[in-house]
Amino acid sequence: MNKEENIGQHESGEIDRLRDDERYMRLAMAQAGKAMLLDEVPVGCVIVREGKVIARGYNRRNTDRSTISHAEMNAIRKASRKLGDWRLEGCTIYVTLEPCQMCSGAIVQSRIDRCVIGAMNPKAGCAGSVLNLLQIAQFNHQVEITKGVLGEECGKMLNGFFRDLRIRKSRL
Amino acid sequence: MNKEENIGQHESGEIDRLRDDERYMRLAMAQAGKAMLLDEVPVGCVIVREGKVIARGYNRRNTDRSTISHAEMNAIRKASRKLGDWRLEGCTIYVTLEPCQMCSGAIVQSRIDRCVIGAMNPKAGCAGSVLNLLQIAQFNHQVEITKGVLGEECGKMLNGFFRDLRIRKSRL
Repeated sequence: MNKEENIGQHESGEIDRLRDDERYMRLAMAQAGKAMLLDEVPVGCVIVREGKVIARGYNRRNTDRSTISHAEMNAIRKASRKLGDWRLEGCTIYVTLEPCQMCSGAIVQSRIDRCVIGAMNPKAGCAGSVLNLLQIAQFNHQVEITKGVLGEECGKMLNGFFRDLRIRKSRL
Repeated sequence: MNKEENIGQHESGEIDRLRDDERYMRLAMAQAGKAMLLDEVPVGCVIVREGKVIARGYNRRNTDRSTISHAEMNAIRKASRKLGDWRLEGCTIYVTLEPCQMCSGAIVQSRIDRCVIGAMNPKAGCAGSVLNLLQIAQFNHQVEITKGVLGEECGKMLNGFFRDLRIRKSRL
C-alpha cells in the first residue's frame, strides 16, 4: 500500500467515526428531549458497545428528587444491569453536556473506554473545564475524550431551556 | 463569662462533637460489617441530620453488579428519598473510608455540609489524598472535612478483609 492510500484509509476511518459519533449523539439528544418534557435541565446520554446502544438515560434529578438521577448515572446503572457487570469495559458514553464531578467519577469508576461530549460546561464540567477527572494519571483508569460532537446543537437545547425558564420566572 | 470559662465551654463543645462523631462512625462501621458479610470491600456510611440518622448504606458493588452501589451513593439515595429533596443541606455524612471521585462528587452535588472520614485511602481517595474534590473553590459548594475518626479501627477492618482475600486466593 502506498502512502496516499494509507492516508486515504485513515481519513475514511476518521469520517466513519465522526458519522457514528454524530448518530449516537442525536440519540443522546433525543434523551435530553425527554428531560425537557419533564421541565428538567435537558441532558441526555447513551452508552454504546460494539456498535449497539446498550443503555439510555436522561436527567431526572427534580422528578426523582435525587442527585444520583443525572443522565449519565441512569445510563451507567442500566448498562451495568444489561451486561451483568459493574465494569463497562469496551463501552463509549455519549452525553450532550460535559459531565459533572460525580458523573465523571462514575465514568472512571465503571471503566468506560471513551466519553463523547456535545456542549462543554465551563463553570462546572469535569472533563476538561474546571478539572479533567477523566484523565488523572494517579487513578487506575483513564478515559479517551472526544469533545464538541454536535456541540452547537446540544448547547442551543440547553440555552433555550434556560431562556424559557428565565422568561417564565419573570412572569411570576 | 471569663476567658477560662469560655475556653472550657469551647473544649466541652469539641468533646461533645468528637463523641458524637465516634458514635455515628460506629454505626457506619456496622454498615461496613454488612458489606463484609457479602464478601464486598467493607465500606459503610450513615447520613445524619439534626442529630438523627436519616440514611444508611454499605458497599454492594459486586452484589448489585453496579458501580453506583458504593456505600455513600446508597446512603445519599436513601437520604434524598427520606427528605423528598435532592438537596441534603444540613446533613453530615459519616464514611469508614475516604470517598472515591464518584462519591466525593455526589457529596458535593447533593450539598452535604460535612464529611466525617474513618480511614484514608492514599491511592484513590478524593477528600485530600489523590485530590480534594470536596473543597474545590470553583464549584458552587464546599464540604467541611473531619478526618481520622476511629481511623485505626476502620483501617483494620479493611486490612483484615484484604488479608483474608489474599489468603483465600493463594489457596485456590
